[in-house]
Amino acid sequence: MLYFSDHELDTFLLEDAYRGDLTTRTLGIEQHTAKMVFKRKQSGRVAGIAVASALLTKLGLQPVKHIEDGVDVDAGTILLEVEGKAEQLHSGWKTAQLVLEWCCGVAQYTADMVAQVQRVNPNAIVACTRKSIPGTRKLATAAVLAGGGHIHRSGLSETLLVFTNHRRLCLEPENWQQHVSLLRQQAPENKITIEADTPDQIAELVKAAPDIIQLDKFSVSEVIQSQQLLAKSGQQTMLSVAGGINRTNAAEYAQTGVTLFITSAPYYAAPEDIKVIITPI
Amino acid sequence: MLYFSDHELDTFLLEDAYRGDLTTRTLGIEQHTAKMVFKRKQSGRVAGIAVASALLTKLGLQPVKHIEDGVDVDAGTILLEVEGKAEQLHSGWKTAQLVLEWCCGVAQYTADMVAQVQRVNPNAIVACTRKSIPGTRKLATAAVLAGGGHIHRSGLSETLLVFTNHRRLCLEPENWQQHVSLLRQQAPENKITIEADTPDQIAELVKAAPDIIQLDKFSVSEVIQSQQLLAKSGQQTMLSVAGGINRTNAAEYAQTGVTLFITSAPYYAAPEDIKVIITPI
Amino acid sequence: MLYFSDHELDTFLLEDAYRGDLTTRTLGIEQHTAKMVFKRKQSGRVAGIAVASALLTKLGLQPVKHIEDGVDVDAGTILLEVEGKAEQLHSGWKTAQLVLEWCCGVAQYTADMVAQVQRVNPNAIVACTRKSIPGTRKLATAAVLAGGGHIHRSGLSETLLVFTNHRRLCLEPENWQQHVSLLRQQAPENKITIEADTPDQIAELVKAAPDIIQLDKFSVSEVIQSQQLLAKSGQQTMLSVAGGINRTNAAEYAQTGVTLFITSAPYYAAPEDIKVIITPI
Amino acid sequence: MLYFSDHELDTFLLEDAYRGDLTTRTLGIEQHTAKMVFKRKQSGRVAGIAVASALLTKLGLQPVKHIEDGVDVDAGTILLEVEGKAEQLHSGWKTAQLVLEWCCGVAQYTADMVAQVQRVNPNAIVACTRKSIPGTRKLATAAVLAGGGHIHRSGLSETLLVFTNHRRLCLEPENWQQHVSLLRQQAPENKITIEADTPDQIAELVKAAPDIIQLDKFSVSEVIQSQQLLAKSGQQTMLSVAGGINRTNAAEYAQTGVTLFITSAPYYAAPEDIKVIITPI
Amino acid sequence: MLYFSDHELDTFLLEDAYRGDLTTRTLGIEQHTAKMVFKRKQSGRVAGIAVASALLTKLGLQPVKHIEDGVDVDAGTILLEVEGKAEQLHSGWKTAQLVLEWCCGVAQYTADMVAQVQRVNPNAIVACTRKSIPGTRKLATAAVLAGGGHIHRSGLSETLLVFTNHRRLCLEPENWQQHVSLLRQQAPENKITIEADTPDQIAELVKAAPDIIQLDKFSVSEVIQSQQLLAKSGQQTMLSVAGGINRTNAAEYAQTGVTLFITSAPYYAAPEDIKVIITPI
Amino acid sequence: MLYFSDHELDTFLLEDAYRGDLTTRTLGIEQHTAKMVFKRKQSGRVAGIAVASALLTKLGLQPVKHIEDGVDVDAGTILLEVEGKAEQLHSGWKTAQLVLEWCCGVAQYTADMVAQVQRVNPNAIVACTRKSIPGTRKLATAAVLAGGGHIHRSGLSETLLVFTNHRRLCLEPENWQQHVSLLRQQAPENKITIEADTPDQIAELVKAAPDIIQLDKFSVSEVIQSQQLLAKSGQQTMLSVAGGINRTNAAEYAQTGVTLFITSAPYYAAPEDIKVIITPI
Repeated sequence: MLYFSDHELDTFLLEDAYRGDLTTRTLGIEQHTAKMVFKRKQSGRVAGIAVASALLTKLGLQPVKHIEDGVDVDAGTILLEVEGKAEQLHSGWKTAQLVLEWCCGVAQYTADMVAQVQRVNPNAIVACTRKSIPGTRKLATAAVLAGGGHIHRSGLSETLLVFTNHRRLCLEPENWQQHVSLLRQQAPENKITIEADTPDQIAELVKAAPDIIQLDKFSVSEVIQSQQLLAKSGQQTMLSVAGGINRTNAAEYAQTGVTLFITSAPYYAAPEDIKVIITPI
Repeated sequence: MLYFSDHELDTFLLEDAYRGDLTTRTLGIEQHTAKMVFKRKQSGRVAGIAVASALLTKLGLQPVKHIEDGVDVDAGTILLEVEGKAEQLHSGWKTAQLVLEWCCGVAQYTADMVAQVQRVNPNAIVACTRKSIPGTRKLATAAVLAGGGHIHRSGLSETLLVFTNHRRLCLEPENWQQHVSLLRQQAPENKITIEADTPDQIAELVKAAPDIIQLDKFSVSEVIQSQQLLAKSGQQTMLSVAGGINRTNAAEYAQTGVTLFITSAPYYAAPEDIKVIITPI
Repeated sequence: MLYFSDHELDTFLLEDAYRGDLTTRTLGIEQHTAKMVFKRKQSGRVAGIAVASALLTKLGLQPVKHIEDGVDVDAGTILLEVEGKAEQLHSGWKTAQLVLEWCCGVAQYTADMVAQVQRVNPNAIVACTRKSIPGTRKLATAAVLAGGGHIHRSGLSETLLVFTNHRRLCLEPENWQQHVSLLRQQAPENKITIEADTPDQIAELVKAAPDIIQLDKFSVSEVIQSQQLLAKSGQQTMLSVAGGINRTNAAEYAQTGVTLFITSAPYYAAPEDIKVIITPI
Repeated sequence: MLYFSDHELDTFLLEDAYRGDLTTRTLGIEQHTAKMVFKRKQSGRVAGIAVASALLTKLGLQPVKHIEDGVDVDAGTILLEVEGKAEQLHSGWKTAQLVLEWCCGVAQYTADMVAQVQRVNPNAIVACTRKSIPGTRKLATAAVLAGGGHIHRSGLSETLLVFTNHRRLCLEPENWQQHVSLLRQQAPENKITIEADTPDQIAELVKAAPDIIQLDKFSVSEVIQSQQLLAKSGQQTMLSVAGGINRTNAAEYAQTGVTLFITSAPYYAAPEDIKVIITPI
Repeated sequence: MLYFSDHELDTFLLEDAYRGDLTTRTLGIEQHTAKMVFKRKQSGRVAGIAVASALLTKLGLQPVKHIEDGVDVDAGTILLEVEGKAEQLHSGWKTAQLVLEWCCGVAQYTADMVAQVQRVNPNAIVACTRKSIPGTRKLATAAVLAGGGHIHRSGLSETLLVFTNHRRLCLEPENWQQHVSLLRQQAPENKITIEADTPDQIAELVKAAPDIIQLDKFSVSEVIQSQQLLAKSGQQTMLSVAGGINRTNAAEYAQTGVTLFITSAPYYAAPEDIKVIITPI
Repeated sequence: MLYFSDHELDTFLLEDAYRGDLTTRTLGIEQHTAKMVFKRKQSGRVAGIAVASALLTKLGLQPVKHIEDGVDVDAGTILLEVEGKAEQLHSGWKTAQLVLEWCCGVAQYTADMVAQVQRVNPNAIVACTRKSIPGTRKLATAAVLAGGGHIHRSGLSETLLVFTNHRRLCLEPENWQQHVSLLRQQAPENKITIEADTPDQIAELVKAAPDIIQLDKFSVSEVIQSQQLLAKSGQQTMLSVAGGINRTNAAEYAQTGVTLFITSAPYYAAPEDIKVIITPI
């Protein structure tokens, strides 16, 4: 459960319907009562139900959730159903639909990636990055979780990940052991992750022995070489792969034995089709 | 110029860096001075500069804009450059990058569609819908405009578009003439647009003579049939196409002579790659 | 229905009662139960009920609405009634009363203007401008609608109206035909309105044939001249009158046959008297 | 100086220009540079300068204030002047104008009342009530102060005023002495004000000796009777008049010798005319 | 009753649980139902119940309040009880606990001071200052009131207190009579309080005769001297003591006969221990 | 650097000065120019400078920072200095002072604890908990960091800590090995911390081998016993102490060899005295 504040929900509603639905009003049908039904057109993973339902509730409606977030449904399944006045339904229709469409799209993509890597290794983890579309971090988080994914880093403030853009500013940028040892001492409650940009950094990085080496844009064979270097060292360090990992290539990377897949791909998934029908009652 | 409020900008910053960058802090490099450079990896349309620049300014920095929104650049062009302390740069790096990457992606897609339809008809218009990703409407608007696109409807409150979901709640759903005539009288300052779901509605709709008939998910040949019906009628009504219009099929639709293309496709474009390099100074 | 966010409602409540009612507290009557009744002192149009009711609900009360927005009532009619603790009632009394008083005032003025112009022409429209008092746009919108009025432009972002302050910045300010033709091509989904400041602009403007010419501060006889010019031209352009149109002169303008009345007058109407009585229960 | 938060200022800007000025954009004049000048059409009191100037500054402009709030100017005096791009100027024009028009209107009305009562008694005070238009409390406060007025009560939370709606909920509603004595003991840092609804309450109220008796809707002769009762008693209690005190009748009430005038009338004053001219530079 | 806006409550919730409880989620127990019980470990004054309860309600829970704010309870008394899903309970546990712990701490301290001074004089008042911890003013107010305290000044905007930092900026800083007389004339609805920093100011201050002289950091004997000076003068001025008045010394000051105690001490009280137990149901 | 949004800063300013300083206004000294100086009365650690300075900047002032956060100064050192109009200075005085006083108090307490434990072990870490006063989390974070402390957990959402309140809801609450193994698999990027309530849990917990066992309210001798159990096991698990660790007992706990001290004590430290002098210029 991710708690969405009233402000967060109202921002969704008001970016579309800041001063009502002019069409409903001009047609003079505001007070007509009706039922609105949301269906997932294709089969697949459901997400956004909690938020869509909270949005409709804010409009004074009492939506009935037929499905919870995180469930897989058949094509055409009704997700939400709600009755009310036309002015209420039309004020929320598109906003609720967009939440469902985008969240289902992100969740589906995530679920697909999870399925692929877990087919190779049931313990594999797909963890989504900070690279969500601006303004969507929390909604994206909800969708990723519904898709069975994890959150790699929720933001800058509670996890440690040393990028080259950090290292360059250190007095001795190439002194990986110094960095890791400083971080270990200064951040005993955090795992230490270092990002490697190129395969030639691995030998030194392995010596420095962070908790995790994040391999950025490594080819599959570069990943395998990195694993071999690590295996030889006997270090406990874990390897994760990041940078361009997506639904298409995840399975192949999983074959290497890596179990931690860092990705931004789900955030840019195509939205799922949610059919919305409003009928008089 | 779309004015972004301090709250809108702060929401972008704080969804990532709500309590600083733990990594910068733990490495003890907060006060190190550095330069941060943003480059567009591929050539193409630029967007998000104004917002990214405003974000960095809020962090106490003085970014230098090398390019304005809406311009096409070569691969590798520097977009923004800024100097400051590591703690400032790292607090804004990813947020500014995400704004640029996503906005450039949306703008590029839009620009591509515009180019395609204008190659057929220089007066053609690509107008983006209300179906933006929840929470991104204003940023998406900025990106679409930088891409040379238009906004179909900014929201529910100031434009008229009769969907079937509206019509069904009218006393006489099929009485198009009544709807149009009511809207004409009640909304003299708005264009009247009616969405047609199926080709068999066109004959009646043409008689009703709204300002625009929006053809939803019509095939190219259905569009042509609709044009013929309209031409025969002698009505001034304009046709627009919507529903599934995208970069792949826009040119084909443009061949029909339709000049108004309603689309949500740019919102889901892949982000452009923006390279960010931070180096000590 | 205009949806008011929790923040919008809380802003109303907290500008008055940010830290409770000192008087109720100091008298030691916070927990005393009571009934609060809101009556419209004079007969007339009701507005603000939905908002006032939402405000009281936020205070933990369950107000009973006796009347809906947009209805005409007799003098002394009870609009709202609510029971609760003194501390709840006194926290909301004045804010709810002010909403009702101001909204009823705006709605009444609007309704009066509507009645006047529709007595001359049943299809006449009174449309209120963007010139609302700062911070009141949405509440004003609700009140105008309850008064039977329309919204001329809800803001800058979705409608087109060329003021002289725009034209002066064009390369050829007096080239009206160029402006209209550019706007027609660039904004096919919007009506094109041009404001005329002086009667001598009408001849050229009529040739340019925008959708609407908005006559700003024209005398009745100047309106009639404009109509004659237009009639002669055979153009479909509509005329609207704006600038100083109010309850006193609207009927006279309506006699000219103009049916679109643009006004800001209702926003500055005197508030209606709402009597609020709190009694123990 | 009333500090307006960024959110308060942005609320003013965005209620009008939430997604830019469509007209400026569609005319293609966004980047044209221009000058915008605000003039007070009639002579009189100036208010709203600080806020209007802050609004324009938020749009990236550097307005030049020619006049400060609280000053009287001749007809046609330039208040503010600012240069920038058309898109900036048009995004702020109407919002800044509305702030100036409404604030000058409120300030002028206040100044007129102050002048009238001070002509009779130079120490007389005009104090404005909590009955401001919803959402305008702080802006109204700024305008009243610029008009030379005072704030009667800024809200519910820091001043004491016993209304009949409070008294009715006390165990002994008519026991004024008990109320006053309780409040004196419980609120030693506040003045105790009791509102009298009818002249027959004055005798008892005078005995109770609050700091102030606020005479609500008393006629001039009832005020004089109340003063006589008070004089006879020898109590230090002050009288104030409230309820229907306005620009028309204030002088007459001032003749009674009362020096404290409680009014809501300025909030509903007609706006002053502010002429705004935008010209190319 | 202090009304807390949705935004105020959400700020409390989201500063802790902005994107859910990772531990609950990772353990896979989100949907397990449970009961959460809040007990006051020590006996004493209860505060924060209304806010804690409102917070839990926002999470979709229906908390049962066993006690109201302002009541004294025995050690181990259950204050609140609530049932729901683990994800709801864990999202609110610590935030609700912190509200209760801190509020009870502030209320207890206040209640202790009130008890001490009222043991000497049953009419004595403990009034808390503006010196609350940044961001806590409203919650602190609620806690002080539950402790039986009063609010000295809720902020800068509605009460008058002349500090030396004000006086120094006056043309004649030492002309106390001028200050008092100006304030009396200009602020007839407010009590006039002047702060004295040193005993040698009292003689002049007494002549100026403000409503209240606030003795800042006066020793008990200095207070007594001040009282004697005042008594000799025959003025009605009241004395209050401020600056370093706390639970330890309040009774001693009360012996002087002063009845108005201005303090910031409760804001920095240690939190009370609230035991929170979550068990499966 | 912790970035504070405009809203966060405005909340601090407006909770005190929502409608200006009545005293300054009523004394008629708003426009008098003056200098305001902030001094730390006692020697010690400085914090709150960045925020106090940002607050004054928002009021239109240009404060000069003499000291940066995190520095130790002598008694009487000037921290901040600023010149401006009385109305600006008085609007910000107390708010800036409160930020400095509270932050310096928290930072001083933290610095004292850090000094104590580092005297025993230079690598020891003092990490502050989520138990900050409601509404102060971010400001407290800034103060703790200035005091040389760390943040144990910034909130619920990015770190793992299994409390008994979590465990009780698991199917097998006492199966520690299962919990740790599940968390290890599900959260490979997080350290796994389990809180132990009683010494008799240690033996089992050590077998489960989480990354950290957090000893809650253990006596020094219980800590030593736990260390011995751990040593015997040969596990890499780290021990931290929490619950009642404060400035008084930290050194004693440090003697045990534990290097990770979890505490909430600094949040409730007494504020430091900041002297503020405003003088005319």
